[in-house]
Amino acid sequence: MKICKVLKPLVSTNRIAGFEHKRLQVVLDGSNKMVAVDAVGAVPGDWVICVGSSAAREAAGSKEYPSDLTIVGIIDDWQPET
Amino acid sequence: MKICKVLKPLVSTNRIAGFEHKRLQVVLDGSNKMVAVDAVGAVPGDWVICVGSSAAREAAGSKEYPSDLTIVGIIDDWQPET
Amino acid sequence: MKICKVLKPLVSTNRIAGFEHKRLQVVLDGSNKMVAVDAVGAVPGDWVICVGSSAAREAAGSKEYPSDLTIVGIIDDWQPET
Amino acid sequence: MKICKVLKPLVSTNRIAGFEHKRLQVVLDGSNKMVAVDAVGAVPGDWVICVGSSAAREAAGSKEYPSDLTIVGIIDDWQPET
Amino acid sequence: MKICKVLKPLVSTNRIAGFEHKRLQVVLDGSNKMVAVDAVGAVPGDWVICVGSSAAREAAGSKEYPSDLTIVGIIDDWQPET
Repeated sequence: MKICKVLKPLVSTNRIAGFEHKRLQVVLDGSNKMVAVDAVGAVPGDWVICVGSSAAREAAGSKEYPSDLTIVGIIDDWQPET
Repeated sequence: MKICKVLKPLVSTNRIAGFEHKRLQVVLDGSNKMVAVDAVGAVPGDWVICVGSSAAREAAGSKEYPSDLTIVGIIDDWQPET
Repeated sequence: MKICKVLKPLVSTNRIAGFEHKRLQVVLDGSNKMVAVDAVGAVPGDWVICVGSSAAREAAGSKEYPSDLTIVGIIDDWQPET
Repeated sequence: MKICKVLKPLVSTNRIAGFEHKRLQVVLDGSNKMVAVDAVGAVPGDWVICVGSSAAREAAGSKEYPSDLTIVGIIDDWQPET
Repeated sequence: MKICKVLKPLVSTNRIAGFEHKRLQVVLDGSNKMVAVDAVGAVPGDWVICVGSSAAREAAGSKEYPSDLTIVGIIDDWQPET
């Protein structure tokens, strides 16, 4: 799993039906921006654990959910070193 | 999921039967060109959400569809920072 | 999917039975050499679409085929920019 | 599989139910910090084998477990060269 | 699939039961050291084809085997260019 920082929610009105209305978050993976399905209710500034690969689907709620990156936990205390 | 910019459709006449006639788009992932199956009807210039891994198959329409990158949503408003 | 250039066939006499006698091609992904199972009959110099992840298995013919990179289409006309 | 070094346990109180109470470890993959589910009982300083992709789920205990990186073995003796 | 060079066997006494007693090899993928399950009986110095993703499991012997990188063939003749 990756350690990412939540930046902000992402709005995408035109999306496939399978995505339903789950919240999408823009997260920072190092200096790279990715989009993750939020399964825990994170807010901007949170350090979170993101799971990828096929596990991202189960983590988002069901084996059919089309996610490849899902926020699965909020880290209690994270000090990113420089 | 990745945030990509749609460049142009890709024509591949000689392709495996499993690909059917779905539209393929060349997308820019950072400075890298990739090919994505278009499930939402994007046009060149759109910023889109692309899903990879095994989720790309369901997102393209069925568990048997051989995609590893599928456009699943058009972002309403995206300002790529430099 | 990735856009790759076919370099040459790869010979591997000692291989697992599950690989059968399908043709393997060395392809160039950027400046990186990879090996792909050829499902379309490409020849050296062709620009091709390669699918990875779990979709590479179905694309190679069956869900049990052990491929993680399969050539699924020949691009009609590709101009790699510098 | 990757060769990683265990840094420290990671505490995440707010996490999805599917993660259960399995121990999470921060591991170093090269100079990159990742989070792995610990299936062998590693301690900080151990050099370990981490499995990713869909195999990380089975390795963590069941096909439904939402892991994409699982510690599957402790290396008896590893000398990282510079 | 990747083209890797076999470096040496890897010993990991404390490992999950699912790994059984299959041989593990340290392989060089470019300048990166990875661990692969050996399904063909390679020896140090061999240039081999390694399969990743979910295909690595079937290639290692069964759909339940927790591998994400499996040696599936020995290349007859490989000249790595500089």
